[in-house]
Amino acid sequence: MKILGIDPGYGIVGFGIIEKDNFGIRVVDYGAVTTPKEMPLVERLLVIEQSFQQILEEYQPDEIAIEELFFFRNYTTVIPVAESRGVILTTCYKYCKNVFEYTPLQIKQALTGNGRADKKQVQFMVQHTLGLASVPKPDDTADALAVAITHSQINPLFR
Amino acid sequence: MKILGIDPGYGIVGFGIIEKDNFGIRVVDYGAVTTPKEMPLVERLLVIEQSFQQILEEYQPDEIAIEELFFFRNYTTVIPVAESRGVILTTCYKYCKNVFEYTPLQIKQALTGNGRADKKQVQFMVQHTLGLASVPKPDDTADALAVAITHSQINPLFR
Repeated sequence: MKILGIDPGYGIVGFGIIEKDNFGIRVVDYGAVTTPKEMPLVERLLVIEQSFQQILEEYQPDEIAIEELFFFRNYTTVIPVAESRGVILTTCYKYCKNVFEYTPLQIKQALTGNGRADKKQVQFMVQHTLGLASVPKPDDTADALAVAITHSQINPLFR
Repeated sequence: MKILGIDPGYGIVGFGIIEKDNFGIRVVDYGAVTTPKEMPLVERLLVIEQSFQQILEEYQPDEIAIEELFFFRNYTTVIPVAESRGVILTTCYKYCKNVFEYTPLQIKQALTGNGRADKKQVQFMVQHTLGLASVPKPDDTADALAVAITHSQINPLFR
């Protein structure tokens, strides 16, 4: 089963694809969709939509996991991040109905066993779990892989 | 010139179309896209996207005006409203590159001459400006017509 994980944003949108089978999980690919600061927001949203259409076509995920937003994080950018997330969510859902959302707390809990873990611990566990030589960069890709790993750990019976 | 005005939301999205020519402005149509509470947000976003594709096809606006969001208004719903707004914005922009955004302050100022005017005053001016028998309902449609009227009043030289 292929899982696409997404860390929403509009300047940098992290994505990561993992494959899960009876032997465990392994990374397929990861990367970031980036949009230039000087581009009007609506054009950035269009670039993001088109990039995710390509990602969905290329990797054909079976399930998609996307991080939820909280207004108290990134206070000043919450509106454009949410606008972008709405576009990403809709684009994904049109392609694949198995879209799941996870809170930052659930992701930290799933990766480290501690809902208050810091970013570095989560990144370390992403690297460790996937057997990578180093922490994926930019951070947004590690965050995207973290949400994909979180989803892979949810008991299928409870889905 | 046909102008589509939009009041963003996800439960109710108001829209209004006005026509502007040398003689003034008149209403073409208005209404609201509504989505049921019990529907998952992502499906509501899809309904909103499809509804706006239909509205754009049907009315073929030359220019589109959409209200900007502020996080300090509607504190608890800002994230889903922004997610929906991102979808609406992108859908509109794919159809027509002439998309303009106005703040609530600009809309109140344009309609009443007073940036601190209340909702009732704005609605009264929408009814008065368009020569309607009553205030358009729901409120979201009056708000959508208000942003369309705001856009119609911007001096074309400054666009």
